[in-house]
Amino acid sequence: MTFDELTRQTGEWLKGEGPHADVVLSSRIRLARNIAGQRFLSKAGESDRKQIYRAVADCIADVELGGNTLILDINDADEIDRQLLVERHLISKQHAAGEGARGVAISEGERRAVMINEEDHLRIQALRSGLQIGVLFEEIDALERRIEQNLEFAFDKRFGYLTACPTNVGTGMRVSVMLHLPALKLTNQIELMFRAAKDMRLAVRGLYGEGTDAIGDFFQVSNQVTLGQSEEEIVEEFGSRIIPRIVQFELAAREALLSERVNLLDDKVWRAVGTLGNARAVSSDETLFLLSHIRMGVHMGRCKNLDLRKVNEMFIYSQPAHLQKLTGRRLDGAERSVARADYLRRMMGSQN
Amino acid sequence: MTFDELTRQTGEWLKGEGPHADVVLSSRIRLARNIAGQRFLSKAGESDRKQIYRAVADCIADVELGGNTLILDINDADEIDRQLLVERHLISKQHAAGEGARGVAISEGERRAVMINEEDHLRIQALRSGLQIGVLFEEIDALERRIEQNLEFAFDKRFGYLTACPTNVGTGMRVSVMLHLPALKLTNQIELMFRAAKDMRLAVRGLYGEGTDAIGDFFQVSNQVTLGQSEEEIVEEFGSRIIPRIVQFELAAREALLSERVNLLDDKVWRAVGTLGNARAVSSDETLFLLSHIRMGVHMGRCKNLDLRKVNEMFIYSQPAHLQKLTGRRLDGAERSVARADYLRRMMGSQN
Repeated sequence: MTFDELTRQTGEWLKGEGPHADVVLSSRIRLARNIAGQRFLSKAGESDRKQIYRAVADCIADVELGGNTLILDINDADEIDRQLLVERHLISKQHAAGEGARGVAISEGERRAVMINEEDHLRIQALRSGLQIGVLFEEIDALERRIEQNLEFAFDKRFGYLTACPTNVGTGMRVSVMLHLPALKLTNQIELMFRAAKDMRLAVRGLYGEGTDAIGDFFQVSNQVTLGQSEEEIVEEFGSRIIPRIVQFELAAREALLSERVNLLDDKVWRAVGTLGNARAVSSDETLFLLSHIRMGVHMGRCKNLDLRKVNEMFIYSQPAHLQKLTGRRLDGAERSVARADYLRRMMGSQN
Repeated sequence: MTFDELTRQTGEWLKGEGPHADVVLSSRIRLARNIAGQRFLSKAGESDRKQIYRAVADCIADVELGGNTLILDINDADEIDRQLLVERHLISKQHAAGEGARGVAISEGERRAVMINEEDHLRIQALRSGLQIGVLFEEIDALERRIEQNLEFAFDKRFGYLTACPTNVGTGMRVSVMLHLPALKLTNQIELMFRAAKDMRLAVRGLYGEGTDAIGDFFQVSNQVTLGQSEEEIVEEFGSRIIPRIVQFELAAREALLSERVNLLDDKVWRAVGTLGNARAVSSDETLFLLSHIRMGVHMGRCKNLDLRKVNEMFIYSQPAHLQKLTGRRLDGAERSVARADYLRRMMGSQN
């Protein structure tokens, strides 16, 4: 797969498929791994980094992540391309902004990716649209085994997998889901959900992970514990108990809106439709805010002239790097707002 | 003219005609007068008030304000009807909320009105769409003469006409215009204009006069001085020098928007179109805010599918009392927001 091909597809995480896709945008498991006998990155010089990069890249080329894998040297990559990968949830903000030899390998359908030399030597990621933690676990487990046939990971009998940051030691596993909770927000129950999540030692973050704000009712919820619980226990608790319960809360709030406050619901949905179909300048944040309401409206059958595919496409391509790829020009913030509004009006089928 | 007929017409002040109608909604002159030999209202008992009411009403019936005059007993009037007259700028908020014998006489086209027992025994008003201070002055002068043939006014050789409030003593005349200044607001020059107006001893108020906030870029500007200047001087200075200068400022700001920031302009205009065509609940204030932007867009040729007549109609009938008259039901605030949104969507020709 070339980078251009990647740019043209909308990717896995916003496909809108899979169980509970009306609330769960995507599920993700990632494993933090380091190569035995190599320095951790905090102690590694550039020649170490290069050696690690080469070793992992060669291994991935052998192993094949699935389909036609793209292996990208992030250090060499254009700034907009790096930003695009962040917007696709294929690399972290930190990885895009970092320095030195580093890269990412991405499977054809974007379901599997490996960041090389991010915080750890390897960050292996499996991603699926909808709530699919169990499936993902089998997948990442198999992938890890294949990689482990070529690379030996730093492992301690007592602690488990060793990682750069102590919060990852043990399983080195983080399970996360991207949730869309507009009804909990509209009915002022979202803080309640946050408090419950905190009590269960879950982290709640914004759309682009660590250090980003929640915008447009999209929340990334992930497990915090990597030590003292087996992978299977985490997957079972998180994927089959905790997240389904949050999904139920959101669906109950949507039902309550439909039966008791349908006018409030429709007001939010249709104002968003009216604004996206008419504005001449829109920021990324406002776009997410408005698309959140439209997505809710589509899932709840409140605006039948829009479909989910279109909403997801707007979601992806209205992001700064995607927008610049789409227009084929470098744009500053003000120019992006105008180009974004033009793109969104076209997508909304607006005559205005 | 019956009250129902009055309700069905959109009235003079928002007709959208006359000189500078793109900036000046309407011009108004009112005279404060009291009947010689009768107690001022602050000292008057209810029987005095009744006597005054009767004397003025009889006089108006004889004089004829023009066409088929409606004389309304405000004390007997329904609350919504009183509120409707405030929204039409035919009586003041204070007059609607007051107590005791009081009324209003209104000419068929709403160009002339007399409030009876408001703060003074008579408040004689002449109103025209657009900037027409000179015409109004001739009109109100003639009207006053006709009334004076039947009623003797309290007058002092040194001070001039005597009025309940000392700020009106002298000419007893207040000249005001309702201005629409969206471009000065958008380009952050409105405060400058306010300061200049203050220096010229003008009062700047909101849409419904004294004690109301400016909403949606509509401002009522009036002269403050009634003593030491002749009526002719006031009319000349206010109508031919001060207001035309403010109009020029606003038009220059509109030109600057068109040539330098047309995208900002269109963004405001079209967002307003999108919101009014899609919202399911809208407050009065938001409606004025949005209609202000649409009115600017129509005058500047930015949205050709809407015309001024429609904008003015929405302006009038989206107001609380008008809306209740239109739906034929008493509505609380929340119900009004929904009914208003329904009415506005229909008027905007929205399919959503």
